[in-house]
Amino acid sequence: MKNDHTSNNDIILMGHGGGGLLTNKIIDEIILNELGNPILAKLDDGACITVPQQELVMTTDSYVINPIFFPGGDIGGLAVCGTVNDLAMQGAEPKYMSLALIIEEGLPLSDLRRIIRSIKNTSVETGVLIVTGDTKVIEKCKRGLHEHTEKDRSASPENSGIFINTTGIGLKLPGVNTAVSNARPGDSVIITGSMGDHGMAIMNIREGLNLESGLISDVAPLWSMINSLLNDIPGIHCLRDPTRGGVAAALCDVAKTSSCGIMINESSLPVKNTVRGACDILGLDPLNVANEGKAIIICRNQDEEKTLQIIKKHNLGRDACVIGKVTDEPAGTVLLKTRIGGERIIDVPTGETLPRIC
Amino acid sequence: MKNDHTSNNDIILMGHGGGGLLTNKIIDEIILNELGNPILAKLDDGACITVPQQELVMTTDSYVINPIFFPGGDIGGLAVCGTVNDLAMQGAEPKYMSLALIIEEGLPLSDLRRIIRSIKNTSVETGVLIVTGDTKVIEKCKRGLHEHTEKDRSASPENSGIFINTTGIGLKLPGVNTAVSNARPGDSVIITGSMGDHGMAIMNIREGLNLESGLISDVAPLWSMINSLLNDIPGIHCLRDPTRGGVAAALCDVAKTSSCGIMINESSLPVKNTVRGACDILGLDPLNVANEGKAIIICRNQDEEKTLQIIKKHNLGRDACVIGKVTDEPAGTVLLKTRIGGERIIDVPTGETLPRIC
Repeated sequence: MKNDHTSNNDIILMGHGGGGLLTNKIIDEIILNELGNPILAKLDDGACITVPQQELVMTTDSYVINPIFFPGGDIGGLAVCGTVNDLAMQGAEPKYMSLALIIEEGLPLSDLRRIIRSIKNTSVETGVLIVTGDTKVIEKCKRGLHEHTEKDRSASPENSGIFINTTGIGLKLPGVNTAVSNARPGDSVIITGSMGDHGMAIMNIREGLNLESGLISDVAPLWSMINSLLNDIPGIHCLRDPTRGGVAAALCDVAKTSSCGIMINESSLPVKNTVRGACDILGLDPLNVANEGKAIIICRNQDEEKTLQIIKKHNLGRDACVIGKVTDEPAGTVLLKTRIGGERIIDVPTGETLPRIC
Repeated sequence: MKNDHTSNNDIILMGHGGGGLLTNKIIDEIILNELGNPILAKLDDGACITVPQQELVMTTDSYVINPIFFPGGDIGGLAVCGTVNDLAMQGAEPKYMSLALIIEEGLPLSDLRRIIRSIKNTSVETGVLIVTGDTKVIEKCKRGLHEHTEKDRSASPENSGIFINTTGIGLKLPGVNTAVSNARPGDSVIITGSMGDHGMAIMNIREGLNLESGLISDVAPLWSMINSLLNDIPGIHCLRDPTRGGVAAALCDVAKTSSCGIMINESSLPVKNTVRGACDILGLDPLNVANEGKAIIICRNQDEEKTLQIIKKHNLGRDACVIGKVTDEPAGTVLLKTRIGGERIIDVPTGETLPRIC
């Protein structure tokens, strides 16, 4: 265990959250060192930003994922991608972001450095500027209301963690309205790639499945791809990223909010073999499993082909496909046409399939 | 113990964070029910907001205070006030706010309702609109890297808690620049009221002092008072709210960033007797203790009298007074002139005097 070598100089202490010299030290040496820009560097209690006379989109998300490092990513990159993607789904160019850290005492400084580095890389990739931030430290937690089972322990509940909030400001593209309430009967339902990759990558670690290959989070920033799409087809009806709750929850939300039905075809749903195998072991439906680098696109039927063309040109969208269509009836309901021709209602799950997935 | 009567229907469960029906239930019944407005009600993953062509200020803060209810307030009102005050210190009218909750499983729903009610009341009072939000649930924590002492237990580390992030967007008043780098030699240093009230109210509970009277948090939104001031005197040099780290940390920040000295007079520092008494018991200096409803105002000497006049008209500023002045030398240093005529350097503390104070 690397913790054997960890001294008090190498970990987060309660004092790092006191607002004194120790706080300044991690802000200067770890955070500003990586993320510094002229606005953030002023370090006032707020950042002055200027925006053109344009509609803005504001979105917030806290990231509490456990474990904080996982195949394909970490909580830092996820915290940038998740918020950038929420802006992208509103048709907004990610512009400014705040970054608030709640760190458990005991977190190795090397972990914090790695997370901040990942935040930097993802924010540079997406062109979003981190302009203001906050750092708090909380006492180390022993998590769990109930006794931990051996399985839980594999997720290292005793390791110190971090919670991250990012709040993003984006510039809404003029003339674009991709709200979940805009689906219309006859529209095509497209997904930009395979389902369930993020959730099953986390589940593989958390449930101790020890499946070695192929279970890798799809976490990725979608703005560049979505921007190309909206530039060519500003009349896209809805965009939604199927994160917590998976594709099922996202589609149910669209059906309910747009007062229409949605019919999806089981045989069209793209799921990697490794993901399907892991889902089978755990008795999960890939439709309910979280994604962090996929979008559901709902467009007029006549825009379907062009949409696929544009999306497939992007690395993140090369497996895009049509999975179903919007229908008149039954309003508010998502139906799955099974491989053998039957129909099944797709419901929003009551509680969690997997907590702390994002 | 009220927990004896608490069933699974009355507390937050992990499933409330799963993004399914249980999540929708608390969002609809508890959050939207109180905080609903046309923008928030759309419940898309981001909020569309429009702002005039004006410089914006963006600020973020996470609130991890323990206990979550305290004399004079609670974490909900604090989370609104703290962020509103950060905007006010930048000369910005609080306009829009995001609200992200990280809730520990086991939190009584009645506690959540009380916190959301407090958020509503404070946001209405300050005119800030909550436009977007996020809700996550984490496993219950047993806090503390070390064994708990009897004293710690009085702060109920075993009760479930909540962390709140608020990110605010404000409209900067034209022609105003109150950055901490703007102090000039000869300026007057004013505080809008007594020091240390918030910190000692928390300390009284956490340290089990059991001092019955007078230790009440000063948590309050300052925009209305600051707005009056800046409308009359847009040339105010600096504004800073002395929260974590107290007046000492705030003044050290001004001195360092403005490259000037600050001399404050011990005999001018306003401290309530109850606060001073509690500080004496714990060996604390009120200069280092957090405030949540006070501002430090640095203005040109010729504006001093008018500033006091305007501030004292407000309920929150009626005890405002001059506590010192900005000097040429020694640059970057805050000096205290003691009652007996000596001088003492005021330093930023290294670590925490009290963790999780805000």
